[in-house]
Amino acid sequence: MDKLNLHNPVFATYVIAATIMILKAVSMSWLTVVRMMQEKGGFRSPEDIRKTLLNPEPDPNQLEPNQRVERIRRIQLNDLENLPFFLVAGLLFVLTEPSLLVARLLLYGYVVSRLLHFAAYFTAQTHDMRATFWTVGSLILIFMTCRTLVAALGY
Amino acid sequence: MDKLNLHNPVFATYVIAATIMILKAVSMSWLTVVRMMQEKGGFRSPEDIRKTLLNPEPDPNQLEPNQRVERIRRIQLNDLENLPFFLVAGLLFVLTEPSLLVARLLLYGYVVSRLLHFAAYFTAQTHDMRATFWTVGSLILIFMTCRTLVAALGY
Amino acid sequence: MDKLNLHNPVFATYVIAATIMILKAVSMSWLTVVRMMQEKGGFRSPEDIRKTLLNPEPDPNQLEPNQRVERIRRIQLNDLENLPFFLVAGLLFVLTEPSLLVARLLLYGYVVSRLLHFAAYFTAQTHDMRATFWTVGSLILIFMTCRTLVAALGY
Repeated sequence: MDKLNLHNPVFATYVIAATIMILKAVSMSWLTVVRMMQEKGGFRSPEDIRKTLLNPEPDPNQLEPNQRVERIRRIQLNDLENLPFFLVAGLLFVLTEPSLLVARLLLYGYVVSRLLHFAAYFTAQTHDMRATFWTVGSLILIFMTCRTLVAALGY
Repeated sequence: MDKLNLHNPVFATYVIAATIMILKAVSMSWLTVVRMMQEKGGFRSPEDIRKTLLNPEPDPNQLEPNQRVERIRRIQLNDLENLPFFLVAGLLFVLTEPSLLVARLLLYGYVVSRLLHFAAYFTAQTHDMRATFWTVGSLILIFMTCRTLVAALGY
Repeated sequence: MDKLNLHNPVFATYVIAATIMILKAVSMSWLTVVRMMQEKGGFRSPEDIRKTLLNPEPDPNQLEPNQRVERIRRIQLNDLENLPFFLVAGLLFVLTEPSLLVARLLLYGYVVSRLLHFAAYFTAQTHDMRATFWTVGSLILIFMTCRTLVAALGY
């Protein structure tokens, strides 16, 4: 059977997890935009303090780092360090034909760990709590990747 | 039929869009190299001011941020925040078997939006113009991802 | 035959190269954690200097950039600029059905170039040596991407 078909429930599980993670990642860009507009600052390029429709009263201070904007940028960087690798590792893992139960536990478990990581980071919880959620996701990613590598080496 | 076959025009459309975007992303690294060599600066690692064949007259100032180099780094970071997610979302979208017309509009539309974003950022156009091109690409990405998610949930 | 099957040796080659690169990328996050714990510093978020189990004696200096931590962050950023694009380009390249020899040379050659790049960066070798390894990997990536694009345009 075609493994990359939405009729295959393991692949459909991956597609649901992957698209939620992509939407999560893209949301960080939009959240940065929202915060830059709220704060009227946190910009990065010299041309961003030219007078325009979206910035009618420019000020050189707008180029200073803004704490509320920088928080979202850090969350986004953490996404970049994790999500692209999950997206590929998950797809390759699905091609090793895991059971539906295992696929759901790992793929949805990863999604939940990342959403909790976001919640903890966004609301500035302690480093320990944030690190715990990150660790869960990272271990799932490592497990899926190692199982896929072992499967490929077995042929 | 095998959906991931270049005989499938929808998949071929994706491959063309994806490879152009990958080449675009890789070009940013090379453009950073070119600018660092032109400026003889904008380096980041302490060992980069050791005397070598490529840096015969080292100077501690070479580690200071350089405006012309930093611009390319910002463009590249914007690529990292967008392109990896487009590459996966586009592939999954293609697996939902959209019509060729829709696939071409969305995938090539995304490529055009990113090339215009680059042109606007590279030449330091206003933030508003750059933001407009970014928004077009981001909305295409969100649309493809949501349609794929809905298709996966429908099974 | 199903091209995305581990019985296909070209695909298995890709899976081995891709999973090693994913593990390499994820290791950079863990290496950052290890160094932050060794240095008790190099943190980035204001909440990271709250007193917790993992940080029993917080100090504002812990938020200052730490050279040993920053080195790993730079290596990781270099990974983010390269690996996600390799992961997708390699997969699409495999779908163009290259010979096993060519696939092995390019995919494993890329892996070796990145591991050497890491070794050179980690031990602070000269910029020239690091740049050489990066260049080999980047040229392999560009070559695979161009060959895939040409194949897609040929249909």
